[in-house]
Amino acid sequence: MRNAIKNGEIIKESECLVPITARAVQYSFSVYEALRVIGGKVVHLEDHLARLKESADAISLKLSASDEEITLWLDKLIKEDNIVDATVRILALGGDVDTIFITHQDLLTYPDSYYIDGIDCGVYYGERFLPYAKTSNLLMSYIALESAKEEGNFESLLINRKGLITEGTRSNFYAISENRLYTADDSLVLSGITRISVLRAAKELGMEIILDAPSFSEIYSFDGAFISSTSMAAMPIATIDGRAVSQKSHDTILKIRDLVRAWELE
Amino acid sequence: MRNAIKNGEIIKESECLVPITARAVQYSFSVYEALRVIGGKVVHLEDHLARLKESADAISLKLSASDEEITLWLDKLIKEDNIVDATVRILALGGDVDTIFITHQDLLTYPDSYYIDGIDCGVYYGERFLPYAKTSNLLMSYIALESAKEEGNFESLLINRKGLITEGTRSNFYAISENRLYTADDSLVLSGITRISVLRAAKELGMEIILDAPSFSEIYSFDGAFISSTSMAAMPIATIDGRAVSQKSHDTILKIRDLVRAWELE
Repeated sequence: MRNAIKNGEIIKESECLVPITARAVQYSFSVYEALRVIGGKVVHLEDHLARLKESADAISLKLSASDEEITLWLDKLIKEDNIVDATVRILALGGDVDTIFITHQDLLTYPDSYYIDGIDCGVYYGERFLPYAKTSNLLMSYIALESAKEEGNFESLLINRKGLITEGTRSNFYAISENRLYTADDSLVLSGITRISVLRAAKELGMEIILDAPSFSEIYSFDGAFISSTSMAAMPIATIDGRAVSQKSHDTILKIRDLVRAWELE
Repeated sequence: MRNAIKNGEIIKESECLVPITARAVQYSFSVYEALRVIGGKVVHLEDHLARLKESADAISLKLSASDEEITLWLDKLIKEDNIVDATVRILALGGDVDTIFITHQDLLTYPDSYYIDGIDCGVYYGERFLPYAKTSNLLMSYIALESAKEEGNFESLLINRKGLITEGTRSNFYAISENRLYTADDSLVLSGITRISVLRAAKELGMEIILDAPSFSEIYSFDGAFISSTSMAAMPIATIDGRAVSQKSHDTILKIRDLVRAWELE
């Protein structure tokens, strides 16, 4: 049985419960982060804690613990459960619940074939509420992903009212054309921790970064497309909405992935 | 200590808990209804159960119980706790939780002064995801209402990208001009159970129903405005965004309220 943290105290994972009568639960008034622990060390911890705070600020949720406290709690849980590699989730509920939980699960990884062959993506027409905040108001992402999966896809890409591909339901989105990397600007999407590394890697490879979301109608004329997230790093896309995407930039995408992964261990 | 229902079984209200590790909880994959019990009888039960089903269908959530079962469970809870007047909440979580809870609380009522003087409303620029479904994806409503309350308002009115007032965070919205009642059409808003009664009452009073959401910029030239909900019936608005709304149709609004309340007891 795994353990977890509730406001600093070690509890059993099965005790990570919230009351359905609480307004914060009924109204999805909570923010979260998903982090990787590799070799007992939390990857990009400072960035994740900064973003947790940004998400909380965006919805006027007061976090009941400081970065220092949450860091100590993470250490405590890693020691208690002898965690080596894992995906950890920090969830902060506000209002009448006002509780921070930390839980962990097996490290989320994907088969090599996903990176070699690329993955299939569905599309969903919709815009997230407060896209720059990582909140539990995730019903659209749930529906978009479920409907994409029903058609055999791995991810669903969100298309906004202007016909632009902004992001995936659990990933950032990029397209490459010659030496240019296109991705939505920070006002439209979640400012992914891995996205920062992706942009850094692209620059390192001599690419020009263009903060414009690629248009869905033009996506098949790009040299390639990929998604990024904490657990995926950079993952090439084979098809969007059942139609093949160019694989010209496949090697570049894998180079970006390798840099992103290498920096995690620094 | 109050009791509640979990999948047909009587449990203590304090046991109405859900795990934060469940995907349905993390992604707000649930639908709900709030009902009034008056004199031991559930008001408009059939309509509420039909809407619960509509909300569930809209997000592809399979309800684990039939209308007949939920009706029996409600009866069971009313008997168990000797409920006379109450506000009851049915919550159906889908996916990996797949549980229906029924809880109850004191009947939600408002002071007479709210109906005599009218209430103050703030405004919030935003559009709900799947507005016709009553889901737990309520963060925007939470934020809109909290910010309105901070300014001393009772409700927050949502304004869409066209500048139209579509609905309140927990109410439907109407404006009156001479003999015409204006309100958003069903594609833009939650099809409130009380809204059905309001439209019926307006017709009974000889009014013409126009399914067009009133424009925010023109709202002060109407003869009056009001909101409706299960717990409010029809409640007149005194101010919107700090500016007075005409009270010419105040008596008409109270007549609508009286009809709505009278029909509840039929």
